[in-house]
Amino acid sequence: MHPTPTDGTRAGLADEFRRVRALTERLCEPLAIEDYGLQVVPEASPPKWHLAHVSWFFETFLLMPSLDGYRPFDSRFAYLFNSYYEQTGSGFWPRAERGLLSRPRVEEVYDYRRHVDAAMLRLIEQCDAERWARVELRLRIGLNHEQQHQELLLTDIKRSLAHNPLRPAYRADLVAPPPGVPEPLEWVSFDGGLVEIGAGPEGFAYDNERPRHRVFLEPFALADRLVSNAEFLTFIEDGGYHDPAHWLSDGWARVRSEGWEAPLYWTRVDGRWQTLTLGGMRPLDPAEPVCHLSYYEADAYASWAGKALPTEAQWEHAAAGVALAGNFLDSGLLHPRPAPGSGVRQLFGDLWEWTASAYLAYPGYRAPGGAIGEYNGKFMCNQMVLRGGSCVSSRDHLRLSYRNFFYPHERWQFQGFRLAEVE
Amino acid sequence: MHPTPTDGTRAGLADEFRRVRALTERLCEPLAIEDYGLQVVPEASPPKWHLAHVSWFFETFLLMPSLDGYRPFDSRFAYLFNSYYEQTGSGFWPRAERGLLSRPRVEEVYDYRRHVDAAMLRLIEQCDAERWARVELRLRIGLNHEQQHQELLLTDIKRSLAHNPLRPAYRADLVAPPPGVPEPLEWVSFDGGLVEIGAGPEGFAYDNERPRHRVFLEPFALADRLVSNAEFLTFIEDGGYHDPAHWLSDGWARVRSEGWEAPLYWTRVDGRWQTLTLGGMRPLDPAEPVCHLSYYEADAYASWAGKALPTEAQWEHAAAGVALAGNFLDSGLLHPRPAPGSGVRQLFGDLWEWTASAYLAYPGYRAPGGAIGEYNGKFMCNQMVLRGGSCVSSRDHLRLSYRNFFYPHERWQFQGFRLAEVE
Amino acid sequence: MHPTPTDGTRAGLADEFRRVRALTERLCEPLAIEDYGLQVVPEASPPKWHLAHVSWFFETFLLMPSLDGYRPFDSRFAYLFNSYYEQTGSGFWPRAERGLLSRPRVEEVYDYRRHVDAAMLRLIEQCDAERWARVELRLRIGLNHEQQHQELLLTDIKRSLAHNPLRPAYRADLVAPPPGVPEPLEWVSFDGGLVEIGAGPEGFAYDNERPRHRVFLEPFALADRLVSNAEFLTFIEDGGYHDPAHWLSDGWARVRSEGWEAPLYWTRVDGRWQTLTLGGMRPLDPAEPVCHLSYYEADAYASWAGKALPTEAQWEHAAAGVALAGNFLDSGLLHPRPAPGSGVRQLFGDLWEWTASAYLAYPGYRAPGGAIGEYNGKFMCNQMVLRGGSCVSSRDHLRLSYRNFFYPHERWQFQGFRLAEVE
Amino acid sequence: MHPTPTDGTRAGLADEFRRVRALTERLCEPLAIEDYGLQVVPEASPPKWHLAHVSWFFETFLLMPSLDGYRPFDSRFAYLFNSYYEQTGSGFWPRAERGLLSRPRVEEVYDYRRHVDAAMLRLIEQCDAERWARVELRLRIGLNHEQQHQELLLTDIKRSLAHNPLRPAYRADLVAPPPGVPEPLEWVSFDGGLVEIGAGPEGFAYDNERPRHRVFLEPFALADRLVSNAEFLTFIEDGGYHDPAHWLSDGWARVRSEGWEAPLYWTRVDGRWQTLTLGGMRPLDPAEPVCHLSYYEADAYASWAGKALPTEAQWEHAAAGVALAGNFLDSGLLHPRPAPGSGVRQLFGDLWEWTASAYLAYPGYRAPGGAIGEYNGKFMCNQMVLRGGSCVSSRDHLRLSYRNFFYPHERWQFQGFRLAEVE
Repeated sequence: MHPTPTDGTRAGLADEFRRVRALTERLCEPLAIEDYGLQVVPEASPPKWHLAHVSWFFETFLLMPSLDGYRPFDSRFAYLFNSYYEQTGSGFWPRAERGLLSRPRVEEVYDYRRHVDAAMLRLIEQCDAERWARVELRLRIGLNHEQQHQELLLTDIKRSLAHNPLRPAYRADLVAPPPGVPEPLEWVSFDGGLVEIGAGPEGFAYDNERPRHRVFLEPFALADRLVSNAEFLTFIEDGGYHDPAHWLSDGWARVRSEGWEAPLYWTRVDGRWQTLTLGGMRPLDPAEPVCHLSYYEADAYASWAGKALPTEAQWEHAAAGVALAGNFLDSGLLHPRPAPGSGVRQLFGDLWEWTASAYLAYPGYRAPGGAIGEYNGKFMCNQMVLRGGSCVSSRDHLRLSYRNFFYPHERWQFQGFRLAEVE
Repeated sequence: MHPTPTDGTRAGLADEFRRVRALTERLCEPLAIEDYGLQVVPEASPPKWHLAHVSWFFETFLLMPSLDGYRPFDSRFAYLFNSYYEQTGSGFWPRAERGLLSRPRVEEVYDYRRHVDAAMLRLIEQCDAERWARVELRLRIGLNHEQQHQELLLTDIKRSLAHNPLRPAYRADLVAPPPGVPEPLEWVSFDGGLVEIGAGPEGFAYDNERPRHRVFLEPFALADRLVSNAEFLTFIEDGGYHDPAHWLSDGWARVRSEGWEAPLYWTRVDGRWQTLTLGGMRPLDPAEPVCHLSYYEADAYASWAGKALPTEAQWEHAAAGVALAGNFLDSGLLHPRPAPGSGVRQLFGDLWEWTASAYLAYPGYRAPGGAIGEYNGKFMCNQMVLRGGSCVSSRDHLRLSYRNFFYPHERWQFQGFRLAEVE
Repeated sequence: MHPTPTDGTRAGLADEFRRVRALTERLCEPLAIEDYGLQVVPEASPPKWHLAHVSWFFETFLLMPSLDGYRPFDSRFAYLFNSYYEQTGSGFWPRAERGLLSRPRVEEVYDYRRHVDAAMLRLIEQCDAERWARVELRLRIGLNHEQQHQELLLTDIKRSLAHNPLRPAYRADLVAPPPGVPEPLEWVSFDGGLVEIGAGPEGFAYDNERPRHRVFLEPFALADRLVSNAEFLTFIEDGGYHDPAHWLSDGWARVRSEGWEAPLYWTRVDGRWQTLTLGGMRPLDPAEPVCHLSYYEADAYASWAGKALPTEAQWEHAAAGVALAGNFLDSGLLHPRPAPGSGVRQLFGDLWEWTASAYLAYPGYRAPGGAIGEYNGKFMCNQMVLRGGSCVSSRDHLRLSYRNFFYPHERWQFQGFRLAEVE
Repeated sequence: MHPTPTDGTRAGLADEFRRVRALTERLCEPLAIEDYGLQVVPEASPPKWHLAHVSWFFETFLLMPSLDGYRPFDSRFAYLFNSYYEQTGSGFWPRAERGLLSRPRVEEVYDYRRHVDAAMLRLIEQCDAERWARVELRLRIGLNHEQQHQELLLTDIKRSLAHNPLRPAYRADLVAPPPGVPEPLEWVSFDGGLVEIGAGPEGFAYDNERPRHRVFLEPFALADRLVSNAEFLTFIEDGGYHDPAHWLSDGWARVRSEGWEAPLYWTRVDGRWQTLTLGGMRPLDPAEPVCHLSYYEADAYASWAGKALPTEAQWEHAAAGVALAGNFLDSGLLHPRPAPGSGVRQLFGDLWEWTASAYLAYPGYRAPGGAIGEYNGKFMCNQMVLRGGSCVSSRDHLRLSYRNFFYPHERWQFQGFRLAEVE
């Protein structure tokens, strides 16, 4: 994927629209028709649903209100492919039942995409100047929205195929890199003080990254890299999953009710750990960052290690001067990799990092009105913030101030963590 | 479909094998690839699973033990496509999760069928005389088993597609017949006395139809036809679904917990009842037999009407002299139809008839040993007997003594009922 | 308790009323106030509820319709203490929440009983001749109803106290008899033929025991006594609870979902089996009949042993000439005991015997109209018949034709079984 | 209750111990024996359990480790009355089943208290100087712990009795005050800046209130009083419970799954709102602060009103100079009351105030080791902070820095809220 985003002209935006839309479809190329409808848990949607939903987003928030004479491809799709926008008036098909629809067929969903693509390009070209500002903003939201679903498409298909005892790979042609060399973890200190975080008023950012505001930080230190498989194995071998002393109460309940013994996708075969990747089963690489674990597991490890997780303010402050580079979707690895070297690294890419911060509004935050205001604000409860992007995030989708969020028990995203401490 | 079964020669059996196997695949022709994996409730399996499971049955009970040198197509299929045979040793994939497997692909399942077909025809041709008796018996069981799954394939796909708000039809080309003319219900009397029911020792029958035995019947009367939609509507309009006086206790609990207001697949559109068929939505035909209802609803109607349901012995005694003719799968209607005329009719075909008999062993019944003995005997609890076959049963699959059985709350089969009374 | 029932005069009935009501309260004497409200599973009601419910029965079906000027003790009790009679119009408090009511207090419930007792005795004395027939019938039903609840009161308190890890005994003063001497099981043959079962038109019987009717029986044999603990232990030690070959499909599902390894109330302490009784924990007596097991376990044992369970017709035919004597509530043991001797024995008392018969209507059965018609008929689905009464049934409550019924998974009643076979 | 806590001498502590323990029992005086074991939802424990659990706390954390020769009253109580301390080694009886234990009897639990009281007073008097510091700290924790359970005892019995359709009152003698006069809500501004919150190193405080640390606050305003019933009624009448636009996503799911239409304990009788109090049903007083609502409802109201909830730092900063006075348990009202006057008020007492802050560790927080370290730290996930105490909190239990926490859906505590905004 092209590393530089649009130049801001309409033609540039049209190019970016084509590029983002094409990438979504390219990510589906390895799938069989049979895979498109698959959903094994409520939170991981079928590829077909993602393909249609991101198109519905453009149709609902751009084409219907702003393209004169636009006719929806199928008016019933508003109900089928709305995700959770209560205020559109269409209602939505239950999330847990997205896999229970064999129709529309895959081919029809691609026709739907063609229909929306053509209309969107018409809108970009023909929209009058008066409406353009709003259209441009919503177009950028729509493109970012589709990029988020590209990431979900990969994490969801990984989750869905993992349920099959035949262990099919998403891409059988992905080659595992040679194992990395474990390096000792180093600590990097920060003075803290009164710092600023969040997105400023210029440029595109989601509403939840604003307003930029001051936060006071005590002096703190961050680990220079993510916690590795080797380190996490020490926790496991020390009985970490069997000692309630390390765990949050809700985390321990989850350990027991779901029988957790290791991160998601780990399996012991003949006494050796393997892990499922988008390229199939692989032996566990000790140097690789540990991946697919919940906030509870990250927190338990930190507690066992006598450390903490960073807050999002600590993380953003530490990352402020760091180049937004790393192992993203663009690298094509589709898996985290060790980060040799020194200094704070892996802040961007490889894995989303669980922070110690609950996902809440920044001071003075106000959600936008209307259905599109349901994008971020209504989830500000019960979830934890993750920062930095992963090996399946597009690089040009990310920002320093980007806030991702998931429930603390969720594990199917590319999540890892880094240690911190207040000095 | 050919009305006369095999002449009993090996060549005749091979023909019948080809015929039955081909019909299964013909029934799948109207499906999209996306439909093959669909399962919306635990009890209704995906078409792909049916296609593979019936092949697994031949592989497990015939090819593996009796065809020297047979190599299974994929040894992991034993786990995926075993239904419930605990004693085969393979275990089985959870029934409720049959729709969560996008692989093997549909094409691979058809390859599996080809592999089994070729081996089966080899076995039929080459089996030595010593093993032939057992092979022949199991072959007949296997063919009857596949015929049962042909019926389930249709009832299951009807159930699965019905969940989709787009209301796709299994076959858009099926034409609805013109509405029938309601006819008054007449009663036919039987003397009863000491009668015999069940299958005699000769010919093919399932174990649960044996032994043939004597039953004493008080004099009784049977309605000459199935209860019609028009009659059942009177019950609904009389508040039948809202008055506990008519209902069994477990039935009333189900009415309330599932919010039943009418038989399955009925919908009121603009004040008029429609019903879903395998050919799509149709206006309700008052003269048609009422269909897709539970034992609880049949019993409640009978109680409201001051009548009863027939026992299976009453039914079998009444049907003993009647020709095994009617509206079966062979007619191609895939839906029940009114039965004009007079005298006891519709005993065979149209709809399975709920009886007042629990599905239990006949006196002296003993289940066969080994895994194949799990076919019928282990279900002899909590289910009710249905008799007579339906519009999606193959005529040559049925017998006078045939005992079908379902749980009293189940509704997705082609079930109806007939009234009876002890005089 | 007096062995002979009323002489049929009003004074005799008043005496019996006093006697039955007093026994209920005597059975509560060992309870602490804290025990009266205890309910640990939906099916086992608190003692306080039983005390009130049986009074509500007299109030609703006798005092309200037949005693002029009767004022209910508290009109809200109709909602709280109705069990399941949908047609009384009061509705009823959810069965599973009977233990969630600390009020009315125990003392108030006894006041309620006093109030009902006084009014009932007034009704018996003063009722005019015209109404007397109906009153007398309902009075007999009410007394039998209270006797059924006396049995439930004991089985329910046993179930509820068993949940407490302190293992409190219902009666600490009950003395365990010395262990019995195991005797070999013998078989007794019956010719069968066309026999009659059910209650004739004379005398009191529940509606479900009628009409008396003919049934044809093949020649059969019955075990001379109930299956013993020693015999059942052989099944356990042979891996009976771990081999699906013996089990009904629904039974095997229950074994696994509930982790059954032995009958209810059995515990292994230091390698030796103990069982909970109403007198506390006791070592298992090998000669004692095995107790507190489900239909599934009885059926699995029979299947393992190559035998069957008797049908209710076989049982009733075999018991027809046998004296209604045995170990009932009247003996005060509150536990089954071995039955030394020879010939068919233990048909009455000790334990209810699971039969192979589903609980269904006899030919020509019609439930009485009105709410009181909900007594028996509406349960005629999904349950199995038990015969013969138990060590906590009153002797004068039982009859040859008496049909008890429970769901096949239920275990908290005093249930056992006897083997049979068709010859 | 005496407003000044102990003078710090052993005799003073012994007095306080006696005083706190006596209050617990005084709060139980209005209960019937039948009420002591009542539990209608998992989160609201029976009074008997509270009485025993607080004694177990002293036994486990003080008497067992520090009083030589102490013999526990009943060693099995460690299992029954431990709440959630995983590290004590005893395990614990399931929280949801605390109401399923009729034994030990109420009387025995009071004996248990006597036993613990005597031993505790011995310990206070005789403990050697070396151990005293630890004993004193744990004693203070134990007394604060019992005070917390005094509050829970009242909120739990309110919840449990409310389930009974007879609507029994905890105290029938409580008199409702005359309705208050609604006053307009005023706003009070705060400059914010770099402020300090949390407990300093001196004096007793829970671990979660420490360390005291700096927080930066934007200028903000607080409402001068809690939101009133009259105001909340406007939200209801405006369709607040039916418009998803105001609600957090998880909150809206809860509204629908539980059918919320008003705060807990509100009922509409003949068109007028009533609410359940510890003194029974009362007409809703419009001037009273709205009570018994979830974080979701508080947040939805704030969103509807275009405002926010205060963060805990805003709250603590605003309350820093305010006298710790108000309507506590000590007033005996057991219900919130209107707060006439002007200026910021009702910060303490009346109702716990939901804040916009998730319950998380302060920077540098470390949980103490051992089982007693499970007191606060392990709950730092998924819960929201409440501040200020309620009408059923003891005044001398509270502090400016006190952090209470509950799940955002919980409603049975005395919870209300106050509006805020960032300027």
